[in-house]
Amino acid sequence: MNIKGRHYRTIWLKENNPETVQIINQLALPFKFEILDLRTCEDTANAIRDMYVRGAGLIGATAAYGMYLTSLVSGDESFNDNLKCAALLLKNTRPTASNLAWAVDRMYSMLSCHTGTPAQKREAARFEARAIADEDADFCRRIGQHGLEIIKKISQKKQGREVNILTHCNAGWLAFVDYGSALSPVYAAHDGGIKVHVWVDETRPRNQGASLTAWELAQHGVSHDLIPDNAGGHLMQHEMVDLVITGADRVTRQGDAANKIGTYLKALAAKENNVPFYVALPSSTFDFKMKDGVKEIPIEERDSSEVRYITGITKEGKTETVRICPEATSARNWGFDVTPAKLITGLVSERGTCEACEKGILSLYPEKD
Amino acid sequence: MNIKGRHYRTIWLKENNPETVQIINQLALPFKFEILDLRTCEDTANAIRDMYVRGAGLIGATAAYGMYLTSLVSGDESFNDNLKCAALLLKNTRPTASNLAWAVDRMYSMLSCHTGTPAQKREAARFEARAIADEDADFCRRIGQHGLEIIKKISQKKQGREVNILTHCNAGWLAFVDYGSALSPVYAAHDGGIKVHVWVDETRPRNQGASLTAWELAQHGVSHDLIPDNAGGHLMQHEMVDLVITGADRVTRQGDAANKIGTYLKALAAKENNVPFYVALPSSTFDFKMKDGVKEIPIEERDSSEVRYITGITKEGKTETVRICPEATSARNWGFDVTPAKLITGLVSERGTCEACEKGILSLYPEKD
Repeated sequence: MNIKGRHYRTIWLKENNPETVQIINQLALPFKFEILDLRTCEDTANAIRDMYVRGAGLIGATAAYGMYLTSLVSGDESFNDNLKCAALLLKNTRPTASNLAWAVDRMYSMLSCHTGTPAQKREAARFEARAIADEDADFCRRIGQHGLEIIKKISQKKQGREVNILTHCNAGWLAFVDYGSALSPVYAAHDGGIKVHVWVDETRPRNQGASLTAWELAQHGVSHDLIPDNAGGHLMQHEMVDLVITGADRVTRQGDAANKIGTYLKALAAKENNVPFYVALPSSTFDFKMKDGVKEIPIEERDSSEVRYITGITKEGKTETVRICPEATSARNWGFDVTPAKLITGLVSERGTCEACEKGILSLYPEKD
Repeated sequence: MNIKGRHYRTIWLKENNPETVQIINQLALPFKFEILDLRTCEDTANAIRDMYVRGAGLIGATAAYGMYLTSLVSGDESFNDNLKCAALLLKNTRPTASNLAWAVDRMYSMLSCHTGTPAQKREAARFEARAIADEDADFCRRIGQHGLEIIKKISQKKQGREVNILTHCNAGWLAFVDYGSALSPVYAAHDGGIKVHVWVDETRPRNQGASLTAWELAQHGVSHDLIPDNAGGHLMQHEMVDLVITGADRVTRQGDAANKIGTYLKALAAKENNVPFYVALPSSTFDFKMKDGVKEIPIEERDSSEVRYITGITKEGKTETVRICPEATSARNWGFDVTPAKLITGLVSERGTCEACEKGILSLYPEKD
């Protein structure tokens, strides 16, 4: 995606120094555009845990590069042990996104049975991490093409009038390597000349909507308005939303979708008001081993300070953190919720669009039958 | 209610100076406890519009005192004209709460046909405003008694284990003259030795949950945790909520309830998960002239700065306002949404508990048939 006219991905190897991984510091957005260097696997694990990077696809790609960085400091004897430790470290950073374990396992299984020299393995690790990143970008581009068809149909039905799309959290290119999942169809529609307008849920407590989605939509010139997470029901009740698209952190084989906390509430409102509700995801977000998402998907509980404090920028341009409740107030902070498949109109992956049920999903993924 | 051991209401006449009305400055809470003087009707209108006072009952009582302050500066000839202007001014401060028009009309109709001297009319105005405030407090106390029965039953069913109650926004004593609507049953239960725990929705964009509900529950010693507005669906899905109680700003004769934006989303989640959802309100919040709340209740749209900026307190103890989105981001800010009656388990007024339908409501209010 373009930032002030220059093309960026969210993660890449440093120019002229492929032993350093670079990322956009998403904690500094939207107030400051900053690039960070990651030099060790620990750096990548910290970047994931502390959310310098976030989003299903980008977490996966970052973890893959973490495995690559591990390979750089591993000799022949320690190679597999080091990889095992790195895999454990990386997988334990955040429990909900399935891309994380998927990317780590893919790196590990390729490297652990590699029979070459350490140098060859390092080369293979770099190649594989890059392949994971490229695939992520390519899959997201294809999600955009499939999702575009949904938006096109609504636009035709509205005879070219603006299509109002509500999204929750950030499932744009900042959440992946490029393009995004939920926002990829929006960008494709905008680029194709379809009038779109996005309702951006601010997405408390971390405000990824206000800080990331609003920022990246503006970079691309897509019309949008920020709204509190509380507003979506009212908008849908009054026919001000034509379509809801969100991303996902994990989708089970029956189509239940874990996504940022609050997604479930929007899905309920969409169902009640006959607004189509789509979940966009690359294949790596499916967890075919799980069935009942509400019962089985582990939901991360994060530090309560994320609820009690908010960071923003003062009139003077200084980044400042303020407490919004009494000093003694305790808070709870679950990061995700699960939207049951019955509330989801369809799933959009790089392979196409399907119904959110085992039969629908297996029609796109027959090899998982 | 008690603040640090001393009993307060949210509005009263100044001691030894009954020509000044005093209020608690709710904009300064929870960081500072401050009392403000209101000396003119314009002062009361500004206090309502700018939300130094807020909440259905307190808005009504403040408007009644605004009419009283008008009477103080009105001579015999100008009396009714002044009252008419004051009524118009006050009614135009905020459009959604029905208590506002109700209190203003009650003051106006009593005073405009009063045949006494200006001094007698002023005396009558003071008496009537005080009666409105006293009634509000008394009605809320009785709401507490009726609502207590609901909590008691749940507590018995749970064999005395903690009853988890979710509430949205602030419908506590700060929203009324005393006791509150939604929180009055909670206080009654707590005082009666029933174990209760409150999930406090922070209630973006103005954070009345984080700043007011958390504060007043703490003053009363009621166990509670602050949560983002996004969390309620997840909690209900996982049986961590036994009961939802909210207040209301206007309830129609068929039982549709306008309340703080986001209430509707919680009602949908409660319905889906078989969690009882009650709306607590004094009679003055009913609007018997309206039927279809979604179509008929005017929904206030407030300034977008409330979404784009958040005020809190810094580590150094300074109140600071920060922007949470890019400079150029536009936002929309509807203050309320309407929960259709079919999602409401019951309404609790000072007269008792009834079903949220015309028949149920008329069983408590046969005179409105």
